[in-house]
Amino acid sequence: MSTESKLVTPERPRGFADKLGDDAGAEERIVAAVGRVYEKWGFDRLETPAIEYTGALGKFLPDTDRPNEGVFSFQDDERWLSLRYDLTAPLARFAAENRDALPKPFRRWQSGPVWRNEKPGPGRFRQFVQCDADTVGSDNPASDAEMIAMAGEALEAIGVARDGYQFKINSRRILNGVLLGIGLGAEDKARLTVMRAIDKLDRIGVEGVAALLGKGRKDESGDFTLGADLDPASVKKVIDFVTLPTDSRAAVLSGLERIVGDNDEGRAGLVELTGIDAVLTALGVDDMRARIDPSVVRGLEYYTGAVYEAELTAPVEDDTGRLVRFGSVGGGGRYDDLIARFTGERVPATGFSIGVSRLVAAQKALGLGGAGRADPLVIVLAMDRDRMGDYFAIANELRGGGVRAEVYLGGAGMKAQLKYADKRGASIAVIQGGDELAKGIVTLKDLKLGAAVASKLGEDREAYAKAREQVQQEIPRAQVVAAVQQMLAR
Amino acid sequence: MSTESKLVTPERPRGFADKLGDDAGAEERIVAAVGRVYEKWGFDRLETPAIEYTGALGKFLPDTDRPNEGVFSFQDDERWLSLRYDLTAPLARFAAENRDALPKPFRRWQSGPVWRNEKPGPGRFRQFVQCDADTVGSDNPASDAEMIAMAGEALEAIGVARDGYQFKINSRRILNGVLLGIGLGAEDKARLTVMRAIDKLDRIGVEGVAALLGKGRKDESGDFTLGADLDPASVKKVIDFVTLPTDSRAAVLSGLERIVGDNDEGRAGLVELTGIDAVLTALGVDDMRARIDPSVVRGLEYYTGAVYEAELTAPVEDDTGRLVRFGSVGGGGRYDDLIARFTGERVPATGFSIGVSRLVAAQKALGLGGAGRADPLVIVLAMDRDRMGDYFAIANELRGGGVRAEVYLGGAGMKAQLKYADKRGASIAVIQGGDELAKGIVTLKDLKLGAAVASKLGEDREAYAKAREQVQQEIPRAQVVAAVQQMLAR
Repeated sequence: MSTESKLVTPERPRGFADKLGDDAGAEERIVAAVGRVYEKWGFDRLETPAIEYTGALGKFLPDTDRPNEGVFSFQDDERWLSLRYDLTAPLARFAAENRDALPKPFRRWQSGPVWRNEKPGPGRFRQFVQCDADTVGSDNPASDAEMIAMAGEALEAIGVARDGYQFKINSRRILNGVLLGIGLGAEDKARLTVMRAIDKLDRIGVEGVAALLGKGRKDESGDFTLGADLDPASVKKVIDFVTLPTDSRAAVLSGLERIVGDNDEGRAGLVELTGIDAVLTALGVDDMRARIDPSVVRGLEYYTGAVYEAELTAPVEDDTGRLVRFGSVGGGGRYDDLIARFTGERVPATGFSIGVSRLVAAQKALGLGGAGRADPLVIVLAMDRDRMGDYFAIANELRGGGVRAEVYLGGAGMKAQLKYADKRGASIAVIQGGDELAKGIVTLKDLKLGAAVASKLGEDREAYAKAREQVQQEIPRAQVVAAVQQMLAR
Repeated sequence: MSTESKLVTPERPRGFADKLGDDAGAEERIVAAVGRVYEKWGFDRLETPAIEYTGALGKFLPDTDRPNEGVFSFQDDERWLSLRYDLTAPLARFAAENRDALPKPFRRWQSGPVWRNEKPGPGRFRQFVQCDADTVGSDNPASDAEMIAMAGEALEAIGVARDGYQFKINSRRILNGVLLGIGLGAEDKARLTVMRAIDKLDRIGVEGVAALLGKGRKDESGDFTLGADLDPASVKKVIDFVTLPTDSRAAVLSGLERIVGDNDEGRAGLVELTGIDAVLTALGVDDMRARIDPSVVRGLEYYTGAVYEAELTAPVEDDTGRLVRFGSVGGGGRYDDLIARFTGERVPATGFSIGVSRLVAAQKALGLGGAGRADPLVIVLAMDRDRMGDYFAIANELRGGGVRAEVYLGGAGMKAQLKYADKRGASIAVIQGGDELAKGIVTLKDLKLGAAVASKLGEDREAYAKAREQVQQEIPRAQVVAAVQQMLAR
């Protein structure tokens, strides 16, 4: 590397994160736990490259000089390449490319970073980790039920209690049936407005949704949103549908039976949900953990049948200090058109994507187990540059005894070394200067206790004097491992 | 996703890999084992984004419309971004950007994919995983010794025997000293030719190197390479230097003492190697595991002091069937100029990079432990689409008993299901059709034994008949978990 006359500014691009210590690897620990569950259920792990042909990713075909917003793309040998923006598009490419060799159905799980070329904002990152499971080539509702039960087991594997999460399940086909029942076909423009209105039920309540299904709704700020302009009877039908009590899957199913009537699409959705219910029941997933909820829409994505999403039910404070459910940590559903882009044939598929960074946030916010915490650290001070070997021998003995230990490697004096230990969050300093060497001893300094003592200076002279004695201990060199282990245990 | 009239070809970009099953996650398993060792030694994990400002990565500054060969780059808001090509450049950016907040020295380990925009070739990938440890801010040779001892422990953690690897250590400063001693300064063009010649010692032997140090060398194909044109006395000095017997570090050090004389740069290198030797000895790393080898050059990279590399010594066949050492699995050294690009101040640093994909290859080639192998798989056949719940209940019981189990989710008949099980490499099929249901039993089919029996058809009628009995077993439904566990154990 040549010497440059002009200095380079060291800066991380906006929308990207550096992570150090416990924060680094937090996603990986979650993925490892989730992956163990998915393997147990017979899913095989898949890795695909970060880079795909832009055309294979779909959605963003190169038709201009520089295609796309949304993905990072670059040209290579006349062809456009892109960083993947999710793990589903690469799965579709892989399943289509290897369709003769793969078992049918093909069940895989996959995890890794994905990239979005979006304007960065607070909490909005342009690189994040996804973790997906998908079953390609099965139209059996059992494969949807499997996703739900398995994802629930994965949530438990990372420390969520069995009563701490809830799945909500619906079928696009049921919704299609209800909309057909009020005269809204696949091409009807009002359809989208109705779906958007239903999707807002949690936020704006029944009356708000009813307004959006009718003429329109004025929100708190006075802004008016134009409605779907349904007649009152149709509004009532949709509202009856989305407000079916969800406490019991059997009750929802019989309620849907009534609402759907003899509409073919709706009946198909009912068969689908009935099949999911049967397998969930066989797997012991009760009504509390997995509800059928007709208000679930899952955005406006490419789903063609069952949709499902997972929520953590534990309360957390929102921005205004109000207690709210922690909320969504993943979702998925059935998409039967994705692989047809390549093969021309419809291939039934269903999949679930876990929100890994949401789960990292949940582990912190809810104090779940499994959040990584590094072992306590012991630092052997370097008192004499000519005796580094002695210090490394001490550190090695400590590591042999299961203790995380390092030797100070800088060139500073004792005071700066203790400051270094503090910055590293170390628990103990091991000191062997010339005097100690001559006496065959080492001094152990309990840095955590030392800090506690210092912060209570003068509160209680007697207790202080006693604690102070415990902060520093002289012990024979041969007993260093046992003494450190003991100090760490107290 | 809209229906497209033209089908997209499903293809993976050249130079990139898909990995499925045991192959997927192989790098991650190695990194996890290595990372546990590095954490134990007090290194903190760091994660930086895949994307950096092109200027911050260095070497490839944007001065033309589309900068660089070697890296993947793209423009974003008028600025050039690149995919990282190693983990050292991002470390330098991070250490410079956070220099006030970080402890000094700063010791971190990091792992992740890196990308090279190179012409793909056999075994040459454009995305691969690196795993690095670096100490920034220490000029103490103990920090080099630490890298070597720690990396050795990491190799043992992934299954390499203590006598199965070897580190070779040298110092650029020693080499500089020897070259200065024969009149070659830092700017001398012959210097590069000499270093290249030394680097070939393993391949072309002492005579080849001597030729390249002198007038030049004709190789087996008849091609002539021009030499460094040193006089015979200088050639002898260099050859004496690079052929010092390496069996004992102490012997090499006293040999170097003689050769280096009173040249300042050479003496500094000698002090460096002596310091490394002392700490290695204190850590119990003997002459077999870590040799001082004056012939080690480590390419022509940016190293400024100690250099070191790790080899696996186990024999493997090369392309011609000859037994050779498995060879290099990582390397590193001291680089004191990297962070100065940002800060203007020289910051001493040393680091080691493990060749993760080389270690994956080694695990396979040498049959090391730790190579991931999925648990045996049990497949519950789906005999009746209306009874999916029953099959899932069986699979769930098996998983509860620690068995990897899945239900067949396709729509095919029994023969196709057994073919699926075969493609999945499954060990056992669990079958409960209508007859079995009525009798309250299930049939277990040992697929591995079945395949073995089929392949020996007719060899020994009696043994065949007996084995065949064992292939298929009827057992009471309630005993399915115990019976499967027993069948897997045999």
